[in-house]
Amino acid sequence: MNDVIKSPTERIDDLQRNGLSIIQDTRAFCFGMDAVLLSGFARIPEGGYAVDLGTGNGIIPLLLSAKTRAAHITGLEIQKGAADLAGRSVLMNNLSERISIVEGDIKEASALLGKGRFDTVTSNPPYMKSGGGLKNPDSPKAIARHEIALCFEDLARESSALLKHGGSLYIVHRPLRLAEIFVTLMKYKLEPKTMRMVHPYLGHEANMVLLEARKGSGPELRTLPPLIVYKEEGVYTEEILEVYGY
Amino acid sequence: MNDVIKSPTERIDDLQRNGLSIIQDTRAFCFGMDAVLLSGFARIPEGGYAVDLGTGNGIIPLLLSAKTRAAHITGLEIQKGAADLAGRSVLMNNLSERISIVEGDIKEASALLGKGRFDTVTSNPPYMKSGGGLKNPDSPKAIARHEIALCFEDLARESSALLKHGGSLYIVHRPLRLAEIFVTLMKYKLEPKTMRMVHPYLGHEANMVLLEARKGSGPELRTLPPLIVYKEEGVYTEEILEVYGY
Repeated sequence: MNDVIKSPTERIDDLQRNGLSIIQDTRAFCFGMDAVLLSGFARIPEGGYAVDLGTGNGIIPLLLSAKTRAAHITGLEIQKGAADLAGRSVLMNNLSERISIVEGDIKEASALLGKGRFDTVTSNPPYMKSGGGLKNPDSPKAIARHEIALCFEDLARESSALLKHGGSLYIVHRPLRLAEIFVTLMKYKLEPKTMRMVHPYLGHEANMVLLEARKGSGPELRTLPPLIVYKEEGVYTEEILEVYGY
Repeated sequence: MNDVIKSPTERIDDLQRNGLSIIQDTRAFCFGMDAVLLSGFARIPEGGYAVDLGTGNGIIPLLLSAKTRAAHITGLEIQKGAADLAGRSVLMNNLSERISIVEGDIKEASALLGKGRFDTVTSNPPYMKSGGGLKNPDSPKAIARHEIALCFEDLARESSALLKHGGSLYIVHRPLRLAEIFVTLMKYKLEPKTMRMVHPYLGHEANMVLLEARKGSGPELRTLPPLIVYKEEGVYTEEILEVYGY
């Protein structure tokens, strides 16, 4: 252990991007491919302001700081342990001037961070309905994966309130919920504009969807070429290797 | 000219399926790949009843009669010329016991054909908003392609009224309109259940979407593997050749 990490379950991983690294906690807060793909998909205009809702250990603000010329990115996280990790990663990468980590509830995001002032909102929210049968509904992993602290409608409402007119929400989610997602986004004037399906293999059903919805926009949804993860078992496609920065 | 065709602009095409052929009119009523892909995508339960809304020259009922063990398929068509062609194709193929062609307006489909009695509804509707700038808004092609005689909401409302609880609507449409399509289907209790994006090439945006929506179903939308049309310029993929029955 050095002075950056606080527990034997924590480790520092190289992000293979602009010399960035991230502190992960193997018990609870490790990022997945979904966060990396969302960071590759999202856009922030030059000099723009962004917020990442449910930032976990801060992977999305870190990757977006390297990829974009955003003026500032705020990561909002309800879980104290994750927010603490994210804050330490920001310090470790000397990014305190471009990234702030705020501990707080997405349901109050626009009251906490201000209405109508963001160009971009990103989120890799819990995918699964809360359900009643969870063994450990208070565990950090359950809160990150199930709609316990947050439902999709809360996310849509707060994203719309945070965004400027013409600003974009970028999310990654499960295609199984796409119909509900569209209806809820449109209820809050977030028009689906760009969609990309992610398929583990070319001949398989999609298991993730990347979606941009723009506040106050007219209709017309572009469906980008499918993003295929594996060429064959254990072998990433060229596009995935590129997103990962190898 | 023989006794089946009525005008020098008409011709008989082999459908490469069960010995079927179809009468087309090169001025106005020729089917496209979208109708063939929709017929490949749609299902009718054995002994079931189906209706094709806006059947044109009857391509979809003809192909579905070969592919399925449906008891009966009704094709509804507002344009007299197309309905006449479709009726002659049914006779020519000796399919009068399994296919009926009805001349009528989709907006009155459930009043004409009966409520809650169909297992399957198919439709390859006009894709484009009517717009004001059309040169020949009364032309057969304009009516088939633009929402002049029919808007998507009429189609959703009538499809829902025609279907049994648990029956499915299968449509082909433009992905650009997907968000509006989902919202409208769900307004009429038609839950999007299966979706397939059609891309002209693997690395290109989708230009068609095949969609199944089920009346009264719970949520959960499956996104099938993308359907890619061309391997390279002028060369169909194996899957397209299979759908076309070559």
